[in-house]
Amino acid sequence: MRYLMKIKYNGAAYHGWQVQNNAQSVQTVVQDALEKVLNTRPNVTGCSRTDSGVHAKCFCFHFDANTNIPANNLVYAINHYLPNDIAAFECRAVTDDFHARYSVKSKEYVYKIYNGALRDPFYESGYTHIDIPLDEKKMDKAAKQFIGKYDFSAFCAAGSSVEDTVRNIMDASVTRQGDEVIFTVRADGFLYNMVRIMAGTLLYVSYGKINENDIINIIESKDRKRAGITAPADGLYLNDVEY
Amino acid sequence: MRYLMKIKYNGAAYHGWQVQNNAQSVQTVVQDALEKVLNTRPNVTGCSRTDSGVHAKCFCFHFDANTNIPANNLVYAINHYLPNDIAAFECRAVTDDFHARYSVKSKEYVYKIYNGALRDPFYESGYTHIDIPLDEKKMDKAAKQFIGKYDFSAFCAAGSSVEDTVRNIMDASVTRQGDEVIFTVRADGFLYNMVRIMAGTLLYVSYGKINENDIINIIESKDRKRAGITAPADGLYLNDVEY
Repeated sequence: MRYLMKIKYNGAAYHGWQVQNNAQSVQTVVQDALEKVLNTRPNVTGCSRTDSGVHAKCFCFHFDANTNIPANNLVYAINHYLPNDIAAFECRAVTDDFHARYSVKSKEYVYKIYNGALRDPFYESGYTHIDIPLDEKKMDKAAKQFIGKYDFSAFCAAGSSVEDTVRNIMDASVTRQGDEVIFTVRADGFLYNMVRIMAGTLLYVSYGKINENDIINIIESKDRKRAGITAPADGLYLNDVEY
Repeated sequence: MRYLMKIKYNGAAYHGWQVQNNAQSVQTVVQDALEKVLNTRPNVTGCSRTDSGVHAKCFCFHFDANTNIPANNLVYAINHYLPNDIAAFECRAVTDDFHARYSVKSKEYVYKIYNGALRDPFYESGYTHIDIPLDEKKMDKAAKQFIGKYDFSAFCAAGSSVEDTVRNIMDASVTRQGDEVIFTVRADGFLYNMVRIMAGTLLYVSYGKINENDIINIIESKDRKRAGITAPADGLYLNDVEY
């Protein structure tokens, strides 16, 4: 039987999802915990790689197992063996042709910025601190230009081996709640570091280094050097996965 | 010149505000940082003790200093020397008769509960996790009975040496936002562990161990044993101080 499991994790202590040599990965910890539940070590296949230090409010993976434990109970069982910074919240049986990565219809990321003038102990992690007042309306106007099906090479980290760099962005917005400025973006897929480069570009728009009407020109240039910096990993969350 | 300074801190790493032998206190760390700014070690007087592990969104203290640094700049100067879990956010000159503790008109505490059914990595600290669904309306009804001027001996930890146990509670409420249940209480002052015992008592009200109309009887009994447990420190925040 194939199972889809959904987990949340604080990525601060991990070098991303994918198994790494000489570095702790979320995948290894999840496999270790599932092995204790199932008494056999399953292969788990994730919905995407995530970068080192990136968080997830909803990360999905599938695995095959023969077990009498009802799917919903697997959540409680694995949580018993997972560390405090990782927790499962959903598990269900799926058909054998379901694939955590290839069956994805869309994924949503959020990038969280703490925009207070002063350092705040309660925003020390999980947010990028920008102490210059941000113009979220200008950033939102720029973000809206990401929406559409484009070659996003300009928003892909150098050295990526991906051949098809066309992605379909379904929604993108920047909103403010008090001192929190949140960039939300949904697409059928993302290139390496794409959301962090988008976030860095939107920061440049607020700083006046990039004109808010120029995003479409940067996309069309396919030139990584014309986009903004890669914003830090700590503000990034995989927020939702749609199948 | 006397100064009033306001700070926030994540109390997880500290044994409360007050200087302790053989344990790190917020007061010691603040005095160390101020000494670096002022080139002399000031006495700092806090608005209250806080228990080990308790947090503050607004903790106030006063100190006397001769310095040419404008009060507002002292915020930036001390933040330079404070660790990530403590930050100043306001400083102003006050009259010589101002006293951080005795000039207090009221203090507000909040107690934060994460009421999701499952463990959540993003609520690992700063919240008490209760996985049984809480009845926040019943808890609010009970909290309202705290309002008034009473002898709160029943809500004071044993062993306290305070003589006057009468306090005036100005406001008390329990609200819910999604999985977060928040108890807020404002008073002219609080007894030792008072807010945590109040929070524990409100939990007992939700569990049905204490009737929501019995709070006034428990107050009048002056019997600590009739109130609920002392809720854990990690959910408690000193939220506001009014002078």
